[in-house]
Amino acid sequence: MKKLILVRHGQSEWNLKNLFTGWTDVDLTEQGIQEAYEAGKTMLSEGIKPEICFTSYLKRAIKTLNVILDAMNMDYLPVEKSWRLNEKSYGDLQGKNKAEATEEFGAEQVLLWRRSFDVQAPALNPNDERSPYNDPRYTKVDRKELPLTESLQDCINRLMPFYTGKILKAFDTCNTVLVVAHGNSLRGIVKTLKGMSNEEIIKFNIPTGIPYLFELNDDLSLKSDRFLADKETLQRLMDEVANQGNKK
Amino acid sequence: MKKLILVRHGQSEWNLKNLFTGWTDVDLTEQGIQEAYEAGKTMLSEGIKPEICFTSYLKRAIKTLNVILDAMNMDYLPVEKSWRLNEKSYGDLQGKNKAEATEEFGAEQVLLWRRSFDVQAPALNPNDERSPYNDPRYTKVDRKELPLTESLQDCINRLMPFYTGKILKAFDTCNTVLVVAHGNSLRGIVKTLKGMSNEEIIKFNIPTGIPYLFELNDDLSLKSDRFLADKETLQRLMDEVANQGNKK
Repeated sequence: MKKLILVRHGQSEWNLKNLFTGWTDVDLTEQGIQEAYEAGKTMLSEGIKPEICFTSYLKRAIKTLNVILDAMNMDYLPVEKSWRLNEKSYGDLQGKNKAEATEEFGAEQVLLWRRSFDVQAPALNPNDERSPYNDPRYTKVDRKELPLTESLQDCINRLMPFYTGKILKAFDTCNTVLVVAHGNSLRGIVKTLKGMSNEEIIKFNIPTGIPYLFELNDDLSLKSDRFLADKETLQRLMDEVANQGNKK
Repeated sequence: MKKLILVRHGQSEWNLKNLFTGWTDVDLTEQGIQEAYEAGKTMLSEGIKPEICFTSYLKRAIKTLNVILDAMNMDYLPVEKSWRLNEKSYGDLQGKNKAEATEEFGAEQVLLWRRSFDVQAPALNPNDERSPYNDPRYTKVDRKELPLTESLQDCINRLMPFYTGKILKAFDTCNTVLVVAHGNSLRGIVKTLKGMSNEEIIKFNIPTGIPYLFELNDDLSLKSDRFLADKETLQRLMDEVANQGNKK
């Protein structure tokens, strides 16, 4: 049986401050590191043995993966990083407080930016210091591919070549694959695997630091999926994520 | 100009206990983590900008690299891990105290195992729990390639295909390459680049956590080399490494 495990990175410094993060490269908090450690221990106790790992270009995901691998004593596993697994770009909203943005633009507009499938936040100016054009990590990426803002749809579209070309491709030689990434890039994978509609995926909240196990048939169709956590923990975490926009 | 930077991992738990480590997968100490962090900050202040990184299958090297990248804010860099960058296997000595081994086998014999070019320590039994045959991380490596013990020469020999095929090959597309590994696997690279004799390399002690910069000509011949540290720090660290066998 093939297994794909998705993990959303643990709490970051800007989750804590309730800021729009997107492609901003913020660090994990101590709690985020602890969440990652617990995720690793959970996978270990469930007998999950990844053979290859994928993550984004953003340190909150990379460090979550590093801590997971260390907790599993599997630091040696191959890791491939890609900008295509990055969080959805929030464009010019990046760095703004979610509650303040609600006051400035109205709850309805902010909800559209946060929870619609195809609405983009205002774009970054290409010369903005936050623009990916000015970030050395993206030097080798074709500028036409780099977003100045993204809808969830855009995020999923740019993820797909990596998902099919690398992540699914890894099952040619591996049985168990681990992906550590972000709420919206992981939504792309979940939507595809579960055949969810646009409306279904925007309502689907992936909790942080909880390994999400997909068991796949040999043809990589979905056999079953479950979070590796008890029901109460799961509901509490999903509620927390869904309520993030309301905090000051 | 091409740049190759070598870093020997920081202090490990068994360095501290003065045990033969070899392929044993021991962790860094707090001091080791601090050394790695300083190495990253030093490279940053020297304007070193790696584009690709290589390390071993052993967590003391992998974590040193992770901390360096984090200190440089370059967590996103591609990293390739290989067992060929592992420390020299100390075979059946692994886990023994260096001072106790001196009492048991005599100083002369232990010095041969530690400082000769072509003498191997006693081999591990293939069924020993310490044998790489029983370690899941080496499942995909041809068993004929996996050592039960190694001389420095053996260690260098198994390193070479990776050094030429991957590390030097990386200069086809990159100008700056970072390798984080172990005292003896790095000796293989230093010996080759500097054209040292067998006698010279066994006397050459690489200090831990000090970035060792090689500037290379376009044909990858050596232009210059220097440690990124002041002279006093360097001498103190080299003396510490050379005197390890005498500690209790």
